[in-house]
Amino acid sequence: MRCHRLEGIHCEEITMLKQQFVVVPPSNMCRDLGGLLKSMDGADMTFNVGGEKVLAHRSVLAARSSVFKAELFGSMMENAGNPLVEISDMESDVFKSLLHFIYTDSMPEITREDVVMAGHLLVAADRYDVERLKLVCEDKLCNHIDSDTMATSLALAEQHSCPGLKEACFEFLASPSNFEAMVATDGYEHLKSSCPSILKELIARFLPAELKAAKDIIMKF
Amino acid sequence: MRCHRLEGIHCEEITMLKQQFVVVPPSNMCRDLGGLLKSMDGADMTFNVGGEKVLAHRSVLAARSSVFKAELFGSMMENAGNPLVEISDMESDVFKSLLHFIYTDSMPEITREDVVMAGHLLVAADRYDVERLKLVCEDKLCNHIDSDTMATSLALAEQHSCPGLKEACFEFLASPSNFEAMVATDGYEHLKSSCPSILKELIARFLPAELKAAKDIIMKF
Repeated sequence: MRCHRLEGIHCEEITMLKQQFVVVPPSNMCRDLGGLLKSMDGADMTFNVGGEKVLAHRSVLAARSSVFKAELFGSMMENAGNPLVEISDMESDVFKSLLHFIYTDSMPEITREDVVMAGHLLVAADRYDVERLKLVCEDKLCNHIDSDTMATSLALAEQHSCPGLKEACFEFLASPSNFEAMVATDGYEHLKSSCPSILKELIARFLPAELKAAKDIIMKF
Repeated sequence: MRCHRLEGIHCEEITMLKQQFVVVPPSNMCRDLGGLLKSMDGADMTFNVGGEKVLAHRSVLAARSSVFKAELFGSMMENAGNPLVEISDMESDVFKSLLHFIYTDSMPEITREDVVMAGHLLVAADRYDVERLKLVCEDKLCNHIDSDTMATSLALAEQHSCPGLKEACFEFLASPSNFEAMVATDGYEHLKSSCPSILKELIARFLPAELKAAKDIIMKF
């Protein structure tokens, strides 16, 4: 049988399509759990985040985060009716975006283009072991590197073990003008104090050989 | 800039790939909830299905099935510690396959090729309003129609509102030899008694015009 291509579909495929009486839609798991997040029907716990009460379902959190699982299904919690859990060192909008991702596997609309939020969410994802959210945030930060955000992104990459983001920063810094612009920012001061180890890497990678030799001599005195 | 095609990838895409430092994997929601099903950590309810005890998480069931939601988050259940719910008229392996789909959005390995199980699961999916499972089962039955299963599939299609499966059955019956073979099966007797309405449709569609006229005359006496 000769086979023609018709708008990208093989003729065997056309035969198959003809015989298809039922169209099975793609997975709706994320939509269904998103509905649960929206309605909060049957929520069995409450978080207190910066004075704001946020409801949630222990089963969903435990399924998606090993840290929540250990916290919420520990022996003390197991029989608690509707426990109240304090979350410190996190803004409530960051925590709510974390919950949104846990329930839907997607970023909330309002934070999708927000690079600062991506940084905060990366920290939250690392804290609660939500690996895919961490990668989503890392990817967003990689795509929005400039001189202003550079040092902060590098500090995040170092403190939260993000090899991709670190590599993206290093590639950006390979241009001397970018390097100089980064050194002039406030973020660089923070980077120096919070991640001294990264400075050694920067020197090893970007300082010209003769300056490195001079620095080694100076450091001996 | 000229653009070449290289193994199906545009050169602009190659540039993008070069700049990609982070690979974000596809959604792992189904894997995560599948893990919860396997471990049953934090299960907060028990079903009794044909004498077998099956654990589950109320939040997950309610998110995925409006029927479970109404049953499990009703006023009586809301404050029950770890309720026991009886399931009647269902085999435990069918119920466990239903749970597997609810937690993972996929069929269990052992039931994937089992056409009889697909029929039972279609009934369960209709009963608990798990629409996507119903379509998955309907699709499987459409792809396994033969003279032996025909009448049963047609009865299922009629009783559980499956237009795709009904159409697939009708297309199969358009061949007179298939029609005759189906009429000779035990399933046809069951079809006649359980779905008399479908017989009218079969007559309207497949009985030759002269026989229809004769039947109308006979029926008047």
